Amino acid sequence: MPLHSARQILPQATGRTARLAAACLLFAFPLACRDTHFAMNSAPIALFTDFGLDDPYVPQMKGAILQIHPGATLLDLSHGQQAFDVKKASWFLDKAVRYLPENTIVVAIVDPGVGSARLPIAVRTQTGRTYIGPDNGIFSAVLNREKLAQAREITNAELFRKGTLSSTFHGRDLFGPVAAHLASGKAFDEVGPILKKLLILPLSAPAAVGDRITGEIMHIDRFGNILTNIQRTHLGTPDKSALVKVTLGTRVLSLPLVPTYAAAPENRPFLVLNSDDEVEIALKEGSAAAALKVQSGQRIVIQR
Amino acid sequence: MPLHSARQILPQATGRTARLAAACLLFAFPLACRDTHFAMNSAPIALFTDFGLDDPYVPQMKGAILQIHPGATLLDLSHGQQAFDVKKASWFLDKAVRYLPENTIVVAIVDPGVGSARLPIAVRTQTGRTYIGPDNGIFSAVLNREKLAQAREITNAELFRKGTLSSTFHGRDLFGPVAAHLASGKAFDEVGPILKKLLILPLSAPAAVGDRITGEIMHIDRFGNILTNIQRTHLGTPDKSALVKVTLGTRVLSLPLVPTYAAAPENRPFLVLNSDDEVEIALKEGSAAAALKVQSGQRIVIQR
Amino acid sequence: MPLHSARQILPQATGRTARLAAACLLFAFPLACRDTHFAMNSAPIALFTDFGLDDPYVPQMKGAILQIHPGATLLDLSHGQQAFDVKKASWFLDKAVRYLPENTIVVAIVDPGVGSARLPIAVRTQTGRTYIGPDNGIFSAVLNREKLAQAREITNAELFRKGTLSSTFHGRDLFGPVAAHLASGKAFDEVGPILKKLLILPLSAPAAVGDRITGEIMHIDRFGNILTNIQRTHLGTPDKSALVKVTLGTRVLSLPLVPTYAAAPENRPFLVLNSDDEVEIALKEGSAAAALKVQSGQRIVIQR
Repeated sequence: MPLHSARQILPQATGRTARLAAACLLFAFPLACRDTHFAMNSAPIALFTDFGLDDPYVPQMKGAILQIHPGATLLDLSHGQQAFDVKKASWFLDKAVRYLPENTIVVAIVDPGVGSARLPIAVRTQTGRTYIGPDNGIFSAVLNREKLAQAREITNAELFRKGTLSSTFHGRDLFGPVAAHLASGKAFDEVGPILKKLLILPLSAPAAVGDRITGEIMHIDRFGNILTNIQRTHLGTPDKSALVKVTLGTRVLSLPLVPTYAAAPENRPFLVLNSDDEVEIALKEGSAAAALKVQSGQRIVIQR
Repeated sequence: MPLHSARQILPQATGRTARLAAACLLFAFPLACRDTHFAMNSAPIALFTDFGLDDPYVPQMKGAILQIHPGATLLDLSHGQQAFDVKKASWFLDKAVRYLPENTIVVAIVDPGVGSARLPIAVRTQTGRTYIGPDNGIFSAVLNREKLAQAREITNAELFRKGTLSSTFHGRDLFGPVAAHLASGKAFDEVGPILKKLLILPLSAPAAVGDRITGEIMHIDRFGNILTNIQRTHLGTPDKSALVKVTLGTRVLSLPLVPTYAAAPENRPFLVLNSDDEVEIALKEGSAAAALKVQSGQRIVIQR
Repeated sequence: MPLHSARQILPQATGRTARLAAACLLFAFPLACRDTHFAMNSAPIALFTDFGLDDPYVPQMKGAILQIHPGATLLDLSHGQQAFDVKKASWFLDKAVRYLPENTIVVAIVDPGVGSARLPIAVRTQTGRTYIGPDNGIFSAVLNREKLAQAREITNAELFRKGTLSSTFHGRDLFGPVAAHLASGKAFDEVGPILKKLLILPLSAPAAVGDRITGEIMHIDRFGNILTNIQRTHLGTPDKSALVKVTLGTRVLSLPLVPTYAAAPENRPFLVLNSDDEVEIALKEGSAAAALKVQSGQRIVIQR
């Protein structure tokens, strides 16, 4: 389209007119295209909540964002977080954000303390990503991986939704609007003063003692795969043909470690290093969690 | 936007130059930026249906919209509406849309009468928002709040999807395409003739007799919060430390009225004025609906 | 972007330079606006998976796409496909895509063989749409309708996500990124060499013998409507007032064929030609599947 238009103008731009046209264009360009420019390059806003999809909360929050920043690019990370479970949300958030563009503004709300003294915060990590949400530990796992660049308490009421700030829905009235303002170009330091101390939840890290690694089952996924917090590095360089001893509660299992789901044996749980380089127990075209009757939060011991 | 910018620049460009510059800008700019301009500022299309996410209906409707208006900004308000329940959909829609940008075009489809004599309509409210859907009362609650500006019957078949109009899927063949045309710049009055009379469902409004307010449970949300249609104004200025008498069926409860979820007592249902300024019964980090065994549609009496 | 370009040109814009500047601008224009231009017109990327919405897989895949192509237009077709059921996914995909813009790039992943020898492929059909996914038959129904233009094996690792290619998540590491590159302008033939042979699953096509048409129940939708693969053309021009004999397992039913849901009798299953011109059994404001106790995959015989 621009190319086409440029050609259309060419015949008119002769002699002295050309200079004027040039000057005019040089100044006019940035002005005329500013809105477009901002909109095109505006940071995506990624939403992560426990609001579900069957209530009016997500549309209300999105509406509040779009009223401030009509060109916002919205991305739903998850609205199915377990209500009130901040620790699990912290784990999930860390998984969900790690491939997002580095200018992404993430709004993360699992916030049983809404309306209480818990602070609303904006956190920038060393990746460049910005996180908006309550200071209740929800960013613990992300901060452990991405490292804090700067945290600020959100106090600037000019960035809130116009109208009364409700005491029960900061996603719509505060967190979403602040994200909208940041995405539309407001500077990070306008949200409020620097915050020196954040609430950080203790993360469950695997412990290696001798050849035993004690970890935790972090999540059961839709396929019934059992996701743990034990990483590739914990395994060392295991003999790939050997069986690995896995203790789940009182049961001790000998499971093969395979490179892909497809390479796994039929009808038998197996270990695989998944796409986040963590140990996962799976069952070929079936649910390992159902077969092994395990749940998120349970302890798992792996013996190399 | 480009035109506007051109005017702003005009005063700086003096003498004869100004005229040339102006001429150049006025012609060159709109041409160069036209596509961008339209796409960037096109009204968002918000979708509200009972189609669910497990059938091909939502993608088919979105496809039909994008074929007409490739730059459309689509926003999912809800696809989980209860099939055939127009009254509940009307309540939910009114909640979901109220923070949307005022140029939003909302397609709302809970439409058991599809293919019958019920009219397809386009309704503009005094907020500026446009609503597209069946004339079956689904817009009743929105119209009660936003007030009608103009309603039109949709008759202009040029705005439908090319091909045969099915008798079972007007979302894809009629409502979605009309929204796409409006979002891409078609004038509202092109959809069809003015409609003088709309089907309006009776809304359940609370009744106050003496100090007793009789209302209705409108919705149980994902957290188990019990949403009613009793508003802040119905409560007057209650003594915040006192208990409020709540009658649910044959049970009479004395519940505290608290300002935030976090300020509530543990293990005991409480009243709170929620983010839409309506009375809600909640339970701290638990489900009030499960604890009190109540359902949507039930009567509730509050005594101040 | 425009601002930056303008500044670069500014110093050159004096006297005679102006003409050069003009010329430069005429060429610079397209350059300066390229990002915008491409973004506005970039092909939409439609996502179709069995990842669900309760795991980090969809956000990770979207993140990987947006890192490559920040202006990507993402469209969720379905993330609720039955895990491992490629045949059903093939049917559903064909329904979901058929109204999409013809430049759409569809990523379709129901991929029990991920990490195995099954090839990653890119398929262009005669509609112009591009399909990215595993060569496991998932495109069978689409290809039957849209007809193959060209298929290529995806081998060009420069189009993959930077970093290690996992063996368990090609959606994030391979399919999504390839779609992102194609949407941002990479040529189709850059993905890899032409593939002569694709895995095509046998499609269940109805068989007509005399006046008996034997078909299959393909899907039960959210409303309980029973979708079959029997098409309008199979019915010939039935007497619309007559009853149609329908055999489901051992039961033989006489059902009316009606033009719309609304025109149907109360409390009695009926046949309707749905919006894809296929025979559907429905029940007015109720679930035909529950009433008739039928399931997807079951045989159905219709006698004209």
